[in-house]
Amino acid sequence: MAEYGPDARTRWFDAGSVALESGAVVPGVRIAYRTWGRLSPSADNAILVCHALTGDANVDRWWGPVIGPGRALDTDRYFVVASNVIGGCYGSTGPTSPHPSTGIPWGPDFPAVTIRDMVAVQHSLVDHLGIRRLALVVGGSMGAMQALEWAIEHPDVVGSVAPIAVGATHSAWCIGISEAQRQAIQADPAWEDGRYDPRRPPAAGLAVARQIAMVSYRSPESFGERFGRDTNGSGFEVESYLRHQGRKLVARFDANTYVLLTRSMDSHDVGRDRGGVAAALGGIAAPTTVVGITSDVLYPVAEQRDLVDLVPGARYVELDIPHGHDGFLVDAAAVGEVLAEHLSTVCARAA
Amino acid sequence: MAEYGPDARTRWFDAGSVALESGAVVPGVRIAYRTWGRLSPSADNAILVCHALTGDANVDRWWGPVIGPGRALDTDRYFVVASNVIGGCYGSTGPTSPHPSTGIPWGPDFPAVTIRDMVAVQHSLVDHLGIRRLALVVGGSMGAMQALEWAIEHPDVVGSVAPIAVGATHSAWCIGISEAQRQAIQADPAWEDGRYDPRRPPAAGLAVARQIAMVSYRSPESFGERFGRDTNGSGFEVESYLRHQGRKLVARFDANTYVLLTRSMDSHDVGRDRGGVAAALGGIAAPTTVVGITSDVLYPVAEQRDLVDLVPGARYVELDIPHGHDGFLVDAAAVGEVLAEHLSTVCARAA
Repeated sequence: MAEYGPDARTRWFDAGSVALESGAVVPGVRIAYRTWGRLSPSADNAILVCHALTGDANVDRWWGPVIGPGRALDTDRYFVVASNVIGGCYGSTGPTSPHPSTGIPWGPDFPAVTIRDMVAVQHSLVDHLGIRRLALVVGGSMGAMQALEWAIEHPDVVGSVAPIAVGATHSAWCIGISEAQRQAIQADPAWEDGRYDPRRPPAAGLAVARQIAMVSYRSPESFGERFGRDTNGSGFEVESYLRHQGRKLVARFDANTYVLLTRSMDSHDVGRDRGGVAAALGGIAAPTTVVGITSDVLYPVAEQRDLVDLVPGARYVELDIPHGHDGFLVDAAAVGEVLAEHLSTVCARAA
Repeated sequence: MAEYGPDARTRWFDAGSVALESGAVVPGVRIAYRTWGRLSPSADNAILVCHALTGDANVDRWWGPVIGPGRALDTDRYFVVASNVIGGCYGSTGPTSPHPSTGIPWGPDFPAVTIRDMVAVQHSLVDHLGIRRLALVVGGSMGAMQALEWAIEHPDVVGSVAPIAVGATHSAWCIGISEAQRQAIQADPAWEDGRYDPRRPPAAGLAVARQIAMVSYRSPESFGERFGRDTNGSGFEVESYLRHQGRKLVARFDANTYVLLTRSMDSHDVGRDRGGVAAALGGIAAPTTVVGITSDVLYPVAEQRDLVDLVPGARYVELDIPHGHDGFLVDAAAVGEVLAEHLSTVCARAA
């Protein structure tokens, strides 16, 4: 079984022609998704999980401690749904999909996708599944961007929301780190303006991009604890680790998709065309738990505190863990506790 | 006048054959240096300034507000010396220098240089200049690594020391960020294992390395204040800025030297062969002012606090400025104040 991507449990939703925020239209969009548990007769026990940059619909694989019978996202109780985003490379229509009129993969011609586009397509899927109300929309990082957009755009559907390790907009700092990664990919001659043969992708560039990303996902503390200044036959342990992480991503991810989705993240700005960030967040009615990670280098806790200040009645939980931005994956158990508490509070309030 | 590198005011010191910490010997080493002010008859008014990764001996160009008549490093009072490190590409012997026996640049065959090697060669220069006592050894980042090594290795010469924005060792975090940069350079086909024609250097790779570095030198706050989410004709302002920074470094720095000196920084460990960090720092007798920058992402202030805990009698000054690691360059005026106070305290103590 591949670590990421569709398997026998994956389903597909035909979203038809999708008009994007840019005005571009993508015909024949298919979205890969998974579900766990059963939708209640009143269709109000659904939870939507939104994945991060290189994640997929297989929440049970990358967030195991959070989902399952008796866990925070209790599949005995909730109908949990997750889909691979539009523009992704794990079963949904994206740069690796054949263009309907040519049969050739879209590659670099796939139009720009915003976080709002991802949410619009998920909304169609939620409709298609007959879901009336989402008890919770949750995600970390790019998934949290989607969660915020859900809360703003679909107050009628969203029962509660839990954005983890994100801000109201993608900061210049994060855009800069994204851009260095894209430059690494695009500096690889195999990139060929994105028109590479999938059998000869810009592997070296994508590997470097992943190395930059992996550092930014962790923290001085976590690298210090894990690697220190330990060495092996080929240098420092941390060097071998990063090279290994680079190779792993190259084996499982597409470079055009990486460029596209990092740009999607850069587009993140809840205030766009809504009169600004404060107006957009001030309109959120759903009970909200904002989760920050003290050691997050990409989205410092100041950004989560800003969210809490602007979302009416938002609760704030700060996880004091050393793992950096990736803490929401590395310490999934801690996140599970927060989500369990969030859900019990929300249910108590609803009762 | 080029922004960096030797000019008419540069002098050269012939250090002869230099035996490095690794055991390798580099014959015919020349070191580019500059001086300001005059050495006193008692030869005890000298100050040594150590430069950072891509810096050079021209302290007046990159640290203008700190050096000059009436400034912290008062050239009416002190004899200020700075040299380009061994292994550098601004006039001192390094990868771009011709190998004495072949006449061909050393390139990737230049042996590994540690921070201690840099200091050993500087020590020869200080001897050569007839300096009996250094009133201060100061530097930021890689320069601060040298300052610490000076204090440990040459207590007879060092009157006081001020390491800025550094730790006792190069952390796994910093090594990881260095390694991503080296991988960017080495992923460029023009790298050719370092045997590139200087007219066709791995420019794309070096530019990406610089972009990674520039992000790490700044902070979320500084990028946010300066760029926010502003856009121009080609995307976000911060993207244009980083691409510009990449091009600028390519025009002024050599890729083999970049790889060599980042490895020198990775070698930084004051405790190596000295019974550990605590023993090494505990032996420092010179009055020490440790300077930390609150927004430093590379060398978080916890590392400077550790130094203060271990260096007997060390003073600690924390600069609460938003500029990140580069704060010691960006806010040179703030550093100048700290150094002026340091020098007046030390002089008062000596009187």
